[in-house]
Amino acid sequence: MTEKLKVYGDSRSGNCYKIQMLCAELAIPYDWQEVDILAGETRTPQFLAMNPNGKIPLLALPDGHYLPESNAILCYLADGHELSGRDRFGRAQILQWLFFEQYSHEPNIATSRFIIRYLGNPVERKPDLDNKRKGGYAALNVMEKQLLNNAYMAGVNFSIADIALFAYTHVAHEGGFDLADYPAIRAWIRNISRRPRFVAMAKV
Amino acid sequence: MTEKLKVYGDSRSGNCYKIQMLCAELAIPYDWQEVDILAGETRTPQFLAMNPNGKIPLLALPDGHYLPESNAILCYLADGHELSGRDRFGRAQILQWLFFEQYSHEPNIATSRFIIRYLGNPVERKPDLDNKRKGGYAALNVMEKQLLNNAYMAGVNFSIADIALFAYTHVAHEGGFDLADYPAIRAWIRNISRRPRFVAMAKV
Repeated sequence: MTEKLKVYGDSRSGNCYKIQMLCAELAIPYDWQEVDILAGETRTPQFLAMNPNGKIPLLALPDGHYLPESNAILCYLADGHELSGRDRFGRAQILQWLFFEQYSHEPNIATSRFIIRYLGNPVERKPDLDNKRKGGYAALNVMEKQLLNNAYMAGVNFSIADIALFAYTHVAHEGGFDLADYPAIRAWIRNISRRPRFVAMAKV
Repeated sequence: MTEKLKVYGDSRSGNCYKIQMLCAELAIPYDWQEVDILAGETRTPQFLAMNPNGKIPLLALPDGHYLPESNAILCYLADGHELSGRDRFGRAQILQWLFFEQYSHEPNIATSRFIIRYLGNPVERKPDLDNKRKGGYAALNVMEKQLLNNAYMAGVNFSIADIALFAYTHVAHEGGFDLADYPAIRAWIRNISRRPRFVAMAKV
């Protein structure tokens, strides 16, 4: 057992990048263990023993516990910090956007990027991709509306809701989404990418 | 403005039933406002002004704030209560299962039930339903594995993770899922439905 946190992740994954962003923001040291999703490395008996759901990112704690689900990891690492909310309703609003991200945003925008960029955009996925295009723009519309009236997703303060939504929104074009009609989202992306501790997503 | 919480929900929806279950468990009083999803009542300008994502359940607070996302509502209502965790890692484990529910379980099991029971199982949804069948059983396999070793989803204590996962698991047969090979899940369903403050889902 190590005394440091260990993150199992694939550098191409926005869900894994979220953890890199938060650890940079909070100056949390960690070891990174690269796991190749496309090579099936999340489906090996060894990996499934750590996370039966076979997904990354996965956080390994120094005491031997494992924690999956990118947004649960964000909540764990930011627990008690203002990045996860300053009061009861503030915490709930941040969670609202974390669930929005996993239900309405990621399955459309991240998955489109995966199909196009990593699966080579196979023709049989066209109907699926068309549905995801529609769902993805609906999610972007909700974000744009929120960001027209608020500097950040959960209001006036930067939070883990912004980290979670930034991860795949800033590479939405790689999934075929055009942000030209989303000026508030584009301003929010610029704003976040200028934070002092910002780390860029790996170019792989 | 009322002094009581108000829940906008459709009685046929497991996501809305989660809120009824938790409010019964914690003896939280609330008013219920029925919203008919199939009649488009979540897409009206009035509803979209309350929740731009056009989804139920939606919690209206006495101070005029609104909170969408079923699992964020559970976290809000149980904030500070042991049902949402007893320590930092406990809170994170519960959140892990809440995100699992929204990403790996609900889009497969709840949506299959919706297609079969409420949309009349249209033939053009067959390929979609086949994919959801596979994804739904994968989620049930993860739950079974967890419940073979733990009384509840997040360990020894009943929590909002159980409420979130109970909602659609106990009606999984309505989505075409057979729980015969899931004895630990069936025991967990029996156990939860015998809790003193348990309320059943509306039969509609």
